[in-house]
Amino acid sequence: MKDVVAGSTGASGLLGQIDELFGDDLVRVEQIFAEELKSWHPFVNDVLGHMTRFRGKRLRPILLLLSAKACGAVTHDHLVLSAVVEMIHTATLVHDDVLDDAEIRRHVATINSRWNNETSVLLGDYLFTHAFHLASGLESTLACRLIGHSTNLVCEGELAQIHERGNQDLTEAQYLEIIEGKTAELCAVCCQLGAHFADAGEATTAAMREYGRCLGIAFQIADDLLDVLGNEGETGKSLGSDLKKQKLTLPLIRLLDQSSPEDATEIRRLLADPTEPNRDKLQKFVAGSDAIEYAFAQANEFAQTARQQLAELPDSVSKRLLEEITEFATQRSW
Amino acid sequence: MKDVVAGSTGASGLLGQIDELFGDDLVRVEQIFAEELKSWHPFVNDVLGHMTRFRGKRLRPILLLLSAKACGAVTHDHLVLSAVVEMIHTATLVHDDVLDDAEIRRHVATINSRWNNETSVLLGDYLFTHAFHLASGLESTLACRLIGHSTNLVCEGELAQIHERGNQDLTEAQYLEIIEGKTAELCAVCCQLGAHFADAGEATTAAMREYGRCLGIAFQIADDLLDVLGNEGETGKSLGSDLKKQKLTLPLIRLLDQSSPEDATEIRRLLADPTEPNRDKLQKFVAGSDAIEYAFAQANEFAQTARQQLAELPDSVSKRLLEEITEFATQRSW
Repeated sequence: MKDVVAGSTGASGLLGQIDELFGDDLVRVEQIFAEELKSWHPFVNDVLGHMTRFRGKRLRPILLLLSAKACGAVTHDHLVLSAVVEMIHTATLVHDDVLDDAEIRRHVATINSRWNNETSVLLGDYLFTHAFHLASGLESTLACRLIGHSTNLVCEGELAQIHERGNQDLTEAQYLEIIEGKTAELCAVCCQLGAHFADAGEATTAAMREYGRCLGIAFQIADDLLDVLGNEGETGKSLGSDLKKQKLTLPLIRLLDQSSPEDATEIRRLLADPTEPNRDKLQKFVAGSDAIEYAFAQANEFAQTARQQLAELPDSVSKRLLEEITEFATQRSW
Repeated sequence: MKDVVAGSTGASGLLGQIDELFGDDLVRVEQIFAEELKSWHPFVNDVLGHMTRFRGKRLRPILLLLSAKACGAVTHDHLVLSAVVEMIHTATLVHDDVLDDAEIRRHVATINSRWNNETSVLLGDYLFTHAFHLASGLESTLACRLIGHSTNLVCEGELAQIHERGNQDLTEAQYLEIIEGKTAELCAVCCQLGAHFADAGEATTAAMREYGRCLGIAFQIADDLLDVLGNEGETGKSLGSDLKKQKLTLPLIRLLDQSSPEDATEIRRLLADPTEPNRDKLQKFVAGSDAIEYAFAQANEFAQTARQQLAELPDSVSKRLLEEITEFATQRSW
């Protein structure tokens, strides 16, 4: 089990190499991000300032820049687009924290707990509109169109997830459909944009998009595993929230699928009433099953499919780093 | 007082004329709107279907189309942009209903009361991203850029409004700054887009933008007046919600400004604790003051400034209708 949640030294090493390769570019992305998000209103600036404290490892900008460099060269458009996708991702995080009633994110108070839900809703909107405004500064409408299409699918995936909350009969296929929208789509478009704006051909751009998609699915399965396994100190997030919100994720879908009818009845009863003692009982069912191993294996399989998409790329440091990301995809929360 | 809330026959007559002029165009706008908002997920379609039941008089598409026709001719781009601005407006309504805990809108259950806040937050996001996706189907990035800029200001105005909730010292200038963002900006960009995409010159486009801005301010002051004066049956909205949410609007700012220190102290006490009996007491202070007349006069002044912007346009049915809208702007909630 240790492999699933630990192993962050390897991932940190990887992030160090990425920083070395893109240090200046990532600083420039941050500047573009900050320049776009300036307000005449002191309160809005306060909220924006607080928000920067819980932003993460910039995975999406990194995927975009690595894809660009692996296919050609990083241009100014790539830097702008990196800021755009980071802004969209941050908007979804801010709204997710409202939906999940989350109090902390990356060890920092969420906007809804520091201020209120209203501020979170409006800040998320503010980030969405600024992202599109920034993207519309590019010469062609293509980026707006691709990012618009992806965010449409992200929202649809999230709406589907809300609807399926409490559905104990959610299938693995339905689960994958949801995470493909809410998580994988944005990773896919990052890699697609990186490749396209580096003048990659159609086949390469499609392969990079598929790399991002499969990697995003692997990440989300790993993230859902962490919610079942992890502890708050390690990830800096409120945990067990999927259970509390009655969101069925892959380990539990597998657990129900593999249990005897009697056990399944009991598991469904516990899921329907996710008090702390009941969650502890559920953990025992999980521990006595192959649920974790199965979900972990599925995540690894998607990560390997992602890796295979890179086969035709010429050798480069960026290609190697994209490959390495697939190795660490299932090892930690990004 | 009757003039403020009644007189809707005149406005209905006006809407009839607009319908006659743009009937086919508005049907096409509706088709574009509906085509963009189709989902693979039955739940998302259910929510979208419900949403169409509380959509309003299409004021923003009407302003865009009238501006286009007054400056030249209505093109396909105008129809697409009309659907875009209507989608953005609907997104803000859906999120407003979460912020205001509103239960009904235009006599129909809000999304948050029919489903839940989560669905409202995500549906609003879905509408925002689809609006930008639709706008990016145009040839140039200009529309995305202008609409992006406007929606940035809309969100900023709404954030400022949330921050100032409960601030009994809000000034008229601060109030105007807020409504300029949250309401007037989208009306301004509608008229700007209408003119620009009809090949109007820079001066005309700027005048049309200013028309929309002043008209939007007049509308919002009238809407805020209705919240103080109106009744639910007439407007189909939850009323008195500004008071409940401790949002200071123009009549109350004026009331405080013109009251004796003793009365002001009592009014502040009532505002801070907006129970029903206290709201009734407030109404008596309002009725004994010039607060309503003052706010009404301010709205009229903005409407007249809007009208003046049209002076240089050649005579046409569209110009006359744009002028007439300014006459009705302060008479009803749009």
